[in-house]
Order: sequence, then structure tokens, then C-alpha cells
Amino acid sequence: MSKSDLEIAFESKMKKMSYITKDLDLFEDDVENYGHYKAKLSLSVLERLKNNDDGKLILVTSINPTPAGEGKSTVTVGLAQAFHKIGKKAIVALREPSLGPTMGVKGGATGGGYSQVLPMDDINLHFNGDIHAITTANNALAAFIDNHIQQGNELDIDVRRITWKRVVDLNDRALRNIIIGLGGPTEGVPREDGFDITVASEIMAVLCLASDIQDLKARLKRIVVAYTNEKRPVTVGDLNVQGALTLLLKDAIKPNLVQTIEHTPAIIHGGPFANIAHGCNSVIATKMASKLGDYVITEAGFGADLGAEKFLNIKTRALGVTPDAVVIVATIRALKMHGGVHKTELATENVSAIKDGICNLEKHVETIQKFNVPVVVAVNKFITDSEEEISFIQQWGRENNIDVVLTEVWEHGGLGGVSLAETIVSLLKKPKEPFHYLYDLNDSIETKITKIVKEVYGADGINLSTKAKKQIQEFNENGWGNLPICMAKTQYSLSDQPQALGRPSGFKVEVRELKASIGAGFIVALTGNVLTMPGLPKKPAALNMDIDENGRALGLF
Amino acid sequence: MSKSDLEIAFESKMKKMSYITKDLDLFEDDVENYGHYKAKLSLSVLERLKNNDDGKLILVTSINPTPAGEGKSTVTVGLAQAFHKIGKKAIVALREPSLGPTMGVKGGATGGGYSQVLPMDDINLHFNGDIHAITTANNALAAFIDNHIQQGNELDIDVRRITWKRVVDLNDRALRNIIIGLGGPTEGVPREDGFDITVASEIMAVLCLASDIQDLKARLKRIVVAYTNEKRPVTVGDLNVQGALTLLLKDAIKPNLVQTIEHTPAIIHGGPFANIAHGCNSVIATKMASKLGDYVITEAGFGADLGAEKFLNIKTRALGVTPDAVVIVATIRALKMHGGVHKTELATENVSAIKDGICNLEKHVETIQKFNVPVVVAVNKFITDSEEEISFIQQWGRENNIDVVLTEVWEHGGLGGVSLAETIVSLLKKPKEPFHYLYDLNDSIETKITKIVKEVYGADGINLSTKAKKQIQEFNENGWGNLPICMAKTQYSLSDQPQALGRPSGFKVEVRELKASIGAGFIVALTGNVLTMPGLPKKPAALNMDIDENGRALGLF
Repeated sequence: MSKSDLEIAFESKMKKMSYITKDLDLFEDDVENYGHYKAKLSLSVLERLKNNDDGKLILVTSINPTPAGEGKSTVTVGLAQAFHKIGKKAIVALREPSLGPTMGVKGGATGGGYSQVLPMDDINLHFNGDIHAITTANNALAAFIDNHIQQGNELDIDVRRITWKRVVDLNDRALRNIIIGLGGPTEGVPREDGFDITVASEIMAVLCLASDIQDLKARLKRIVVAYTNEKRPVTVGDLNVQGALTLLLKDAIKPNLVQTIEHTPAIIHGGPFANIAHGCNSVIATKMASKLGDYVITEAGFGADLGAEKFLNIKTRALGVTPDAVVIVATIRALKMHGGVHKTELATENVSAIKDGICNLEKHVETIQKFNVPVVVAVNKFITDSEEEISFIQQWGRENNIDVVLTEVWEHGGLGGVSLAETIVSLLKKPKEPFHYLYDLNDSIETKITKIVKEVYGADGINLSTKAKKQIQEFNENGWGNLPICMAKTQYSLSDQPQALGRPSGFKVEVRELKASIGAGFIVALTGNVLTMPGLPKKPAALNMDIDENGRALGLF
Repeated sequence: MSKSDLEIAFESKMKKMSYITKDLDLFEDDVENYGHYKAKLSLSVLERLKNNDDGKLILVTSINPTPAGEGKSTVTVGLAQAFHKIGKKAIVALREPSLGPTMGVKGGATGGGYSQVLPMDDINLHFNGDIHAITTANNALAAFIDNHIQQGNELDIDVRRITWKRVVDLNDRALRNIIIGLGGPTEGVPREDGFDITVASEIMAVLCLASDIQDLKARLKRIVVAYTNEKRPVTVGDLNVQGALTLLLKDAIKPNLVQTIEHTPAIIHGGPFANIAHGCNSVIATKMASKLGDYVITEAGFGADLGAEKFLNIKTRALGVTPDAVVIVATIRALKMHGGVHKTELATENVSAIKDGICNLEKHVETIQKFNVPVVVAVNKFITDSEEEISFIQQWGRENNIDVVLTEVWEHGGLGGVSLAETIVSLLKKPKEPFHYLYDLNDSIETKITKIVKEVYGADGINLSTKAKKQIQEFNENGWGNLPICMAKTQYSLSDQPQALGRPSGFKVEVRELKASIGAGFIVALTGNVLTMPGLPKKPAALNMDIDENGRALGLF
């Protein structure tokens, strides 16, 4: 039986942070250690290095995820290690894992095998406390809102129109729909409420899009938390708690530094959902990585239709730079699923299923090309992949003039990604072409959504619900018409129907409702049922978790 | 105008942790830095130093707190600094502040003036994440319970008899009484629920009483979370999540090291409520401090009737040692309030009010003497105290053969506490007398409660509600009869009536309800209304909080 990721992690010997930072342009005081193998980086680094050239930015995304697994994080980490192997100064910039899924189903989200970040147990648990700080700021704001109402409600908040929800960084379905404030006059004002998972908090998105701590405060101030009885928006600024919320986030805004299993520097910071939010690590972390490294390898959540689209249409506008290349991760197994094969049959050779499923990959390649960014397909190799199957996909790449590179980073670490790194290096020698946004901020909300669903999902258009139509009108009146759009859609399909694998066509996307994330600076368009609070399965991953006699983690994988 | 505590804190120059640990018996790897000026200490220190002599243990407590403020934490920190001034190796061992009161009314809880612990902003905010880890473990357990019910309820949990509540480390009255699980069959099972503040979580008490990580796991396993439809207790062990909860607490169980403003080592760890729980810092921290220092200065919550009584009757049984001396902190101002003076009149000389109020101090001195521990009264001097007033209390000490020592530690730091330290040193030269517990564990629950209220509160006895009587019977049947008692009572009075200041007599204590904290290992006896979730005031302290242009804290005081 092969070793678990946690076993591989514990067998490897981490280096002290001073070793990891030795080739980086950092002073001793820039690095605040958090335990022996974790650190936070001072924001002053950005100011000091602002005139440094930016490193090359490589965004890793994937086809639509399937239960077969694509290994996007593993490839991202492995690619950074591969750059090191070929003598390049690379930094990997990842999102922070959320504890809810870790305790529920995943058991960990830090890459895998010989391409993972360490210490994997700490990163998967509380890490340096960023997500807890966000939970606290989110819930402090909720408490301030309810206290404002209890103490006389000067702002005339309509208790039926409070949009700010509480959060926990756990999977807890029983908190989705609740009633609070029961028990009589001294116990608050009764109202409907609910909890989201922390990574769905607008504060997570705000932290990830802020350029510095003052911008963080300005964005927090703009967050809309409710509407008055006259339907006017109520903001954090109206409650005058932006200072307290910023104070609660003063350390969370600093990027975290750790190492990969091959001691490549890894900056892990921020982790917003890729449906209700934009699904990328923080702007500050990406900026800092690109000032410290010559190659920055970063990833975005879910497939290219969600995380990458938002990286390119939303995050780049805050970041000020656009990627130099995009890697789309696919697996033979997942392509078979997109071609209609059941999860239990993936080990059987089936070239014709790949032929049927490769349209999913093809669409994502086309999408990235529309942004005018060079694209490489990384096929994350599994032991069950046959030579025939691999030949097919390589042939497909040659026929379509697409770079297709095999990677074996889970098993071989950086060495398993050297061809991919070399392919990217040669791609980057060409001059950078002008980036093309898929929509203009001045397009109407309806036009922006329509462009995304047509260009990225391959849909024929959108159907707006009556509610969404009314909201567009209200949002325009509030002056929010020129914000980018954050699509909340199932990750499993290019369409809004999770079961429609491959490359669906002839469909329209139903836009059920909009949500104004004014602090983050985008309008969320909700399609279908997007879950912002997951539930636990019958046997949560937590049942296998424990400590050994030395207090070390067991049951993370 | 005098400087705020935060201003004084920022004007002082902290030393790096390597300076703070230089005289302590620690290896480099024992100290995990968390930022430049905070650290966690490895649990292996306890094992390595187990044969070291224990340092002298000095417990600081106070009279019943009044709105005038007694400055107990300030005296505790100042006393440790004073020991350093007279050449003794002292360590101060404190509780961690809870963020709820900090954001609500207090703005900070780390001592004051020139007797405070640093970095005061970080300690008052997220510190090293212990309280967030406890919040997470507490709420993960709640999610596991509701998921168990949703997934078929094999344990036959009665949803009306779930005693485990969720927590946030905030003051949020709207969460006191809620209904969860609404929204239909896929959204959980509807039931009544409520949130406590995190420091009221039994997990906080468990963490503070555990002797090591294996004992932590064993205690977590014993926690009773609900009762079945046949009224049998359901434990964490029945749900089989003790491993996952322990894993979530693997770093939180390590004591935190910081420094006082005069660079005396300060171990700050754990902070359970002093009503619903035992109100003392952790056993592990106190043990470690006593292996590393010759004098350990620690404090317990609220007055001697609550925190100190529980330190002496509960914590010492887990700790294995008893204090060598107890300091009772009083102020002239607070004694005047106990003598009937209104808060607005405290600046006016009033010896006769002190004469009327000193009975409160007198009772606490008598209580400590019943445990057969040497006692010193520390009068924390204020600028408004008159010579007449001071003379009176000194005279009272001489007449009653009680050491009464003035301290000025807020203004003068350690120097302001040298007389107090010297008094204690000479007191400790006498041989230690045998400690006397106020009750025997084999006494019945009713007898134990009765002994506490008679001996410590000066009551005539107890009245048990019908509910409490029934619970005593059930608890005995469950085999919980021989646990110590944790009294939940108002901190403002020796009695269960908050407005009864001074030294009330001729009263009985109403025991409304019991609560079984089987993981912590005590039975809570609830008298009156004990609030386990505070509310925010009309103008929360948070409204004044902010960051300056350098991202530093403002508005903590």
C-alpha cells in the first residue's frame, strides 16, 4: 500500500525558516516566525521592494473537477519545485485550506505525495490563525448589527433585510437556517439568520483583494450589511466599526511563508470560495511573491470556468498584472468521466471515452486563449493510465497546436515536473501579448453576465429571474453597475447543471439572484443552488483523526 | 492627562524572546516563536524538568470586585517585577483575556500602566490562537452532534436534552437563545440551542485542568454532551471524536510566553470563566512556571470567594501543589463602595465608609486562613487615597495581625511592589503548614455546596430547587457524586445577591440548577442568573478601536 501524504510529510525533514528565506530579498525582521516552520511576512516588504521587477506569473487551473480528482494543488506545488530543479528562483503562492472540508471529507488540502507544502498538519488545521481572525471579524460585525438594533436601531435597519450572515469554519448544516434573538426583550430582537462557512465570508474576499491595510479598511467600510426600512443600503461605515474590524485583521493580512517538501518557498494566504467569491489567494501574497521570486506559481479554485475566469476578470484588476502563462491540469481518469465513464470503471483502458471527454479540456483551452494568455496542458499521470490513452491526448495536442506535458509530481516531486517547467520557460521567451478582458466594467450587469456565460461556459445566453431583474435595477440606482461579476455556479459542469459533463451546448444559464459584495468590489450572480455552508457526511474524516503518543497528527491525508 | 496603558506599552521597547528566556532552563527548540515577541513552550519541558524543585507559588486574589476597580492583574504583574527587582527569579502566570469583553467594555485585560504584559495589543486580540482553537473544537463537537442526529441518531440522543452549546469569543446576546436546523429535511433537525462565550466552554476548563495531552484527550472523551431518550448520558467518547478534538487543541495546550514591561517572563495560558468554570490559568502553565522560576505569581478570577476558592478546592487537586502564600488585593476606593459610598463620591476622604466596608476584606482574609495558607493584603494605592484612610487600614492590619502592604505598581512598576515582595519573602521563610481543604470529595454534593457557602460566603446554608434535588439524585446514579463543586455565583457580593456588598449575613444561597462538567471533572452549582453570554453596551469599546497609519493598534486601554 502506498504511503499517505501525512506519512510522507512526517518522513521528510523540514528546514528552519532562515534556510527557506536565505535566497530571498528579506531582512531578519521581515520574517515573523510562527512556530519553527511557519512565518508571516511583514507588509513593509512590499514597500521596500516596490521597484523590483515582477517575476513571471503562472496560473494553474484545471478542467471541470470530477470525483476522480485532478491534483491541481499537487501540480502547482510540483511545478514550483520543478522550476527550482532547473535552477530558477520560484515561489508557489497558494490558498489556505478551510478546516470545514478538512474535518468533513477531504482530510487535507496541501498538495500530495512529494509535491506538498509543509507542515501539512498545521497548514490544514489552524495555520497562522488568519481564518480564525476572519471568522471573528465577521461575527463581531454581526454582533454589532444585532446590538445596534437592540439598542434602538438609529439606522432604521429592516430586520428582514439583513444580508450579513454569521460564519464558522466548519461544515455545519444545522446552522444554515436559524432564528436568533429569542427569549424576551433583554435577549435581542428575534429574526431569521444563518451561518455560512468562513471562506464564504465577504471579509475573506475583501482581505484577498486589498492592496494594503488602509485599502483593507476602506473596503471593510464599504461592505453592505443590510437595508433600511426604506431599502437604502447600510454599510459597515454607517456602524463605524471599520477600525475595529481592521484591527482584528492586522496580522491576518500578512502573507504566510512555509516550504514545500523540497524546501521551495511557499506563500499561502487567503482562501475565498470560488463560487460565492473569486477563489484566489490574496493580492498582497501574489504581489509579494512576484517581488521575491522570478517565477510565481499560483492556482485558482475549481476549474478554469470558475477560479481562472475570476482570476483573470476580477483579481488581475486589483493586482495590476496579468499572468504570463496558464497551466490547465487534466487527468486521463477525469477526461474519461467527462466522456461518460462511471467512477468505478476508470482503471480500464478506454480511449474512446477520452475522445468523448476531451471536449471539456478543449473548451477551457479556448477560454484561456480568449484572454490572450499562453496555455499549457499538464496531464497529471496516474499508474492506471495506458500508453494508448497517453498517446491519444498527446496526439490531440499536436493536432490542435497545444502544448501537452505529462507530469509525475506526486511520485517524483519537482523532477516529475521538469518537462512542464521547461515547456513554460520556452513559452515565456516570446514577448507578452496584450491581455484581453472578456468584458468591460462599463458594460451593463446583464451584458457582463451574458458575456461570461457565452464566452466561458459556451451557453446561448441567460435567463434572469424576476428577482434578479429587480435587483439589477436597484444595484444600478445604488451606483454599483460598473463592478465586475463574480459567478456562483456549480464547479462540476461548464453549465449550471452539475450532471452535464463534457462540453454542454444549447443551454441558457438561469440567474436566480444577485448579491452585492461592495467591499470585495463585485456583484455575485447566483445560478442554481450554491451551497455556502456544507454539511458533514455520515462518517466525517474527523472520525479518523487523532494524535499519537508524541502529540503528532494522525488521520490527515 | 495620564497616558493610556496602550500608549505606555508602545513607548516601551520589548526584548526578543531569546533575552526573556536567557535565565530560564530552556533549550532553543523548547521555544516556538509566534511573531517577534510571543512564543509557545514545548510540553517536553515538563518531562525534562520534572525533577526540578517547584518554585514558591503565590496566588493573587481580591475582595469582591466593584466598579471602582481593584487592579488585581496589575498587582500580579507588578509583584513579579518586584521579585525581579530584589534579585529573585520570578515568573508571572496569568489567564488569557477573552476578546468578547475587550471589544465590548474592557478594551484590554493585561494589567496596566508600568505593570502590564506585552505585546498588550496582540495578547488582547488573537494572541497565539488558543481561544480560537477552543472555539473551533467546541463548535466542531456541536456540528458532530447535530450531524449524528441528522444521519440517523444511532445513539438515540434526545434533541431536547442536548447540553452542549456552541460558542463564540464575542459578546453577542442575540445568540443566547436560538432555534437551529430549520429549512426542511436536508437542513438538519430543528431544535432549541444557544451560544455561550468561548471562555465558558467546558473545553476551556478541560484544557486548563489537563496535566498533559493524553490527559486532555481522556478528559475530552468524558465530556457529557447530551442525554438519550432514556436519560442516559451521551459522551464525546460515544461519538468517537475525542481524537479530532485533541488534534484541534495540539498547539493550544502549549503555554504561551511573553514579557512584562520590565522584561520579566510571563506565561499566559488558558482563561476559563470564574463562575461557570474555575477561573484559573492552566495547570500545565502553572507547573511549567514553577519548574522554571523560583517564585510563581499567579491570579484567579473575580474575588477570593470565586476564583481563589476554586483555585484552592479544585485546581490544586489537579496541580498537585498548593500555594505558599495568598495576596488579597484591595483598594481604598473599593472598600468605600463596600461601605456604601456611591461610585461618584469615591474621591472624597471617608474613613468611616472604609470602616464599614472593610468587613468584606476581613471575610476574605478569614477564608484564606481556613485553608491554612499565609495571607497578605495588598492595598493598590490611588492618587485620591488620603493619609487618614491609609493609616486606618494599616492600623486595622496591625490590630488583626494581618500584613497590609501598600503597592504603587501601576505608576512605578516593580519598584512600587518591592515592600510587598519583601513581606512575602519573609513570610515564606516559615515552614509550610499542612493545607486544609474546605470539603472532602467523598462528602455528598449537598454537603460540599453547603460547606462552601458557610465557610466562604458566610451563609447560613442552601436552598436546593426541586430541579437541583432531582439532578443530585441523577448525578449520584451516574457516579458523579465525588467530584468537586464549581460554584456559579455573582462576583459582586459574598452572597448570591449582587447588590449585597460588604459582608452580608443571615442569608441562604439558592441553588437553582446543577451542570455536570465531567470532562473538567466538577459539578457546577448555579445560583441566581449566571450569564454565560454577555451582551454589548450601547457604545461598545470597539467603536474607539482602529489602526494608525503604520497598522498599529489604537483604542485598546
